[in-house]
Amino acid sequence: MNKKEVKKLREELTAVMGNGSIETDPDILETYSRDETADAVFMPDILVRAENSEEVSTVLRICNEMGVPVVPRGAGSGVTGGALPVHGGLVLSLEKMNRILEIDTENMVAVVEPGVITGELQKAVLQEGLLYPPDPASLDICSIGGNVAENAGGPRAVKYGTTKEYILGLEFVTPDGTIMNTGGKIVKDVTGYNLAGIIIGSEGTLAVVTKIYLKLIPAPSVTKDLLVPFDSVDDAINAVYRILTARITPATLEFMEEDGIKLVAKFHGGKIPFPEAGAHLLIQINGESEESVYHSLERIWEVIDVDPEKIFAAESEMQRERLWKARRAIREAIHEEDPCFLAEDCVVPRSRIPDFIRDLKEYFNSVNLKSIMFGHAGDGNVHIDILKGDREYKQWKGMQPDIKKEVYTRAIQYGGTITGEHGVGMLRKDYLTIKLSQEEIELMKRIKDAFDPKGILNPGKIFSDE
Amino acid sequence: MNKKEVKKLREELTAVMGNGSIETDPDILETYSRDETADAVFMPDILVRAENSEEVSTVLRICNEMGVPVVPRGAGSGVTGGALPVHGGLVLSLEKMNRILEIDTENMVAVVEPGVITGELQKAVLQEGLLYPPDPASLDICSIGGNVAENAGGPRAVKYGTTKEYILGLEFVTPDGTIMNTGGKIVKDVTGYNLAGIIIGSEGTLAVVTKIYLKLIPAPSVTKDLLVPFDSVDDAINAVYRILTARITPATLEFMEEDGIKLVAKFHGGKIPFPEAGAHLLIQINGESEESVYHSLERIWEVIDVDPEKIFAAESEMQRERLWKARRAIREAIHEEDPCFLAEDCVVPRSRIPDFIRDLKEYFNSVNLKSIMFGHAGDGNVHIDILKGDREYKQWKGMQPDIKKEVYTRAIQYGGTITGEHGVGMLRKDYLTIKLSQEEIELMKRIKDAFDPKGILNPGKIFSDE
Repeated sequence: MNKKEVKKLREELTAVMGNGSIETDPDILETYSRDETADAVFMPDILVRAENSEEVSTVLRICNEMGVPVVPRGAGSGVTGGALPVHGGLVLSLEKMNRILEIDTENMVAVVEPGVITGELQKAVLQEGLLYPPDPASLDICSIGGNVAENAGGPRAVKYGTTKEYILGLEFVTPDGTIMNTGGKIVKDVTGYNLAGIIIGSEGTLAVVTKIYLKLIPAPSVTKDLLVPFDSVDDAINAVYRILTARITPATLEFMEEDGIKLVAKFHGGKIPFPEAGAHLLIQINGESEESVYHSLERIWEVIDVDPEKIFAAESEMQRERLWKARRAIREAIHEEDPCFLAEDCVVPRSRIPDFIRDLKEYFNSVNLKSIMFGHAGDGNVHIDILKGDREYKQWKGMQPDIKKEVYTRAIQYGGTITGEHGVGMLRKDYLTIKLSQEEIELMKRIKDAFDPKGILNPGKIFSDE
Repeated sequence: MNKKEVKKLREELTAVMGNGSIETDPDILETYSRDETADAVFMPDILVRAENSEEVSTVLRICNEMGVPVVPRGAGSGVTGGALPVHGGLVLSLEKMNRILEIDTENMVAVVEPGVITGELQKAVLQEGLLYPPDPASLDICSIGGNVAENAGGPRAVKYGTTKEYILGLEFVTPDGTIMNTGGKIVKDVTGYNLAGIIIGSEGTLAVVTKIYLKLIPAPSVTKDLLVPFDSVDDAINAVYRILTARITPATLEFMEEDGIKLVAKFHGGKIPFPEAGAHLLIQINGESEESVYHSLERIWEVIDVDPEKIFAAESEMQRERLWKARRAIREAIHEEDPCFLAEDCVVPRSRIPDFIRDLKEYFNSVNLKSIMFGHAGDGNVHIDILKGDREYKQWKGMQPDIKKEVYTRAIQYGGTITGEHGVGMLRKDYLTIKLSQEEIELMKRIKDAFDPKGILNPGKIFSDE
C-alpha cells in the first residue's frame, strides 16, 4: 500500500471505531512483522488491535470494500508464517481480546476470546477441577485463536486428540464483516453444515474467529510422569509400539533422539536427566485413582524392557518440571544453536515411525545434514528440525526446496502427510501438490471463494500464488 | 424424469459399467421410495447399487452431465427423509459396498466401505479388543456411511462424542465424478482445509463417501449397566446433574419419562423392569479395571438419592440385553402405537434439560398433545416424539408446522438447536431460519455450490427450495 492508501484506510477505520486500536507507527509495526518463523520478516502497512467482535467486523468490512489484505494474528507464535503480512496490508491482532468470558462448570464448557493464552486457560479451568487437554509445547505463549487456526495438538493428543475435538462452537466474522455463529454449549448439532469443521485448521484464510466454546473434561486426579532412557530410537519406538498394542493409553508418549538430548543438555549446562542416552521417552499416565494409574504403570513395566532403576519418575511438581524441561526447551535450544534451522512436522501412521525416521536419517546422512527429531511418538507426529550447520546462508536457502521435497515425499510414501500441527502457511504452499491432487486443491479454493470472494483474508497462505 | 430420459440414462450408465448394478423395475424401486421417516414416499426413477468407488464416480459423472438428481442411500434407516428422492432421479445405494477392508490393530484404525452396518463393525473390532464408540440406537440396521452423513451420536456420546470424533479420513466422490481423499491412518493433519470436517453431517448433499478411516480405541475391560427408577423426570435429571457435577463420566446416561416407560411396557407385555416408575435412568459405567468401575459406582451411590435395593444392575450379557430392551424398543413401540408420530431430536445445554422438558410438557398439555420424551440426558440431546392421537390425519398434518415452530423455538431459547443427530433432511428445511441467520444459510449454500455447482446431489434437503 502506498502512503495515501494507508491514510485513507486509517481515516475510514477511525470514522467508525475511533483511533485507539489503530497503529501506523513503524516501530510498533516492526513487532508485527515477525512471528516465530525462522528467517521471515514482512512489514504490515497498518495494525489494528481489535477489542471486540464489532471492531473485527468493521475492519473486515472496510478492508473488503477497499480490497486491502487482512492478516489475523494471535500471539505470533506460529512457525510457518501464518500471521505474517506477506502481501502487506492490515494486521488484525486479537491479542487484546483475551478474556475468559465464562467457565460454565455445570455444562463443562469454557467460553473464551481468541487472544486467551492457552496455558492461562488451562490454569483457570484446573481451579474448577476441569481439564482443557490440548497442550502445544508453546502453551505458555500461544493463544487459543491460533490453536484453532492451526488445529494445534501437543503431547497429550495421543490420549485426548487435537483442538478440533474440543471446539463446540465458534463466533466468527466473514471477510465481508458479517458476524456468524456455529454450535454453542452443545455437544451435538446437525442443523446445517458444520462450519466450525472447515474453519478449524484453515489458518486464518476463511474467517476471523472471535469467540470460542470449548469442551472441558474432568481433570484426572492422579498424574505420573516418567522419563525412560533407551540406547536407541529404535528401542524407544519399539517400547511405544508395545505400550500401545498392549492397549495402554498414556496421556503422552514423547520421544527425543540422541542429537536432541545432547543439544538440550548443552543448552541447560548438562543438567537434564540421562544426558547420555540414545533416546528418551517421556510418558505421562493419568487417571481417576492411584490404583488405576499404578495399574497402568505396572503394565508398562511388563511390556517395555527397561531396568526400573534407570527410570526417572516425577513425584512432585518440581520434579515434573525438571522432567519436562528438556522436551519444552528443545526448540529454544535448537534456535540458539542454529537460528536458520528448518522445522518440519510430518505425520505418519504411528506404526511407521521407526521406518520413517530410519529412512530420513539415511537421507540426511547422504547429503551431510544434521537433523534433530523428536515429538509425538504416540500419534505419529514427528518434529524434524534440520540444521544449516556451517553452510553459507545462500547455499542453505537454495538447498531447502530439495530437502522439503525429500522429507514430504517420504512422509506420504509411509501413508502420512506434510504437516500435523504447524500448518502450511507461507512455507509449504508450493509443496501442497505432493500430497493433494489438483482437483482437491481446486475444491479447497472454491471453498475459500465461498467465504472470501475478494481474497482479502490472509492472502499468500496455504495456496501457491501462481 | 420421463421414460425416454430414464432409458437414455440407463443406456449411458450401462455403456460404462454394465447392467448388473442398475435397476428400473418398479417393484424394486418401491423399496427405495421409503426410509424410516414416518409418512413419506418418493419413487426413484432409477436405482444403482454401486459396488465400488469407480461405479459411484461413473454414476455421478453421467448424472452431473445430464442434470439428473442423485440421492445417496445407506441402509435407509434415517428419519428425516435424507435418503428419499424428493425430486425423483437416481437413488445411489451404497448397500453393496459393505466390506470391512481392514482392521489395523497396530494403528487402531478400521478402514471400511460406507455400507457396513455399524453394529457389525462394532462386533468385528471388539474381537480384536477394540471399541468403535458411536452407538446410534439403530446400530443393528444403520450403516456407517449414513452415520457419517448425519454425524450420528448415540447413548455413549456423553463419554465418547459423536461420529465426527472418530473419522480420521475419507475417500469421497464429488458430483462431477472426481474421487478425492482427505486424511487417512493419521491422527493429525493440517495439509490444506479439513474437507472431512464439512462433509461429515452434510446429509449427502456435498459428496458421496466411499471409504472411511475410523479411529478405534482400546475396549474397556469392565462394563456395568444400571437401570435406576425415579418418581419423576425432575428427580432423574437432578441425578444426572449430580453425577456429572461430581465429575463422574458414565459411558451412557439415558433417560425415559413415564409415558415412554408405559408404552414400552405395553409393547413388551409388561416385561420390563420398573414399569411403574415416573422416569428411568440407564447408566453404563466402563473402565479398565473392576476397581475403577466400582469406584465410580460407589461415587454414583453417594451423589444420587436412591435406595440401592431398587436398582436393577446387569451382571450378565443377558441381563444387559433385558435392561437395554426398553430403551432400544421405544421407537418401535411408538411406531406401533401411532405410526404418524412426529419425531424431533432437539439439543440443549444439558443443564437446561429439566427446564426445557417442563416447558415443552406445559405447551403440549396446553394444546392437548401426547408426547414421549427420552434420550441422552448426558449430552443434552432430547428425543421428543409427539403422537397424533385420535386426530384426523389432515388435521394432524396441518398442526405440525406450528408444533415444530414451538418446539424448535424453545430449544433455541434454552441455548440449543433444532436437531442433534437426525438431521434437517426434507422435514426441517423450512425451519432452518429459526436457528440460522440468512447470511449463515447463504454461506452454507455457497459451500454447497463449491462442491456441487449443478445442484444434482440430494436436492430438496437441508435448504428450503425457493
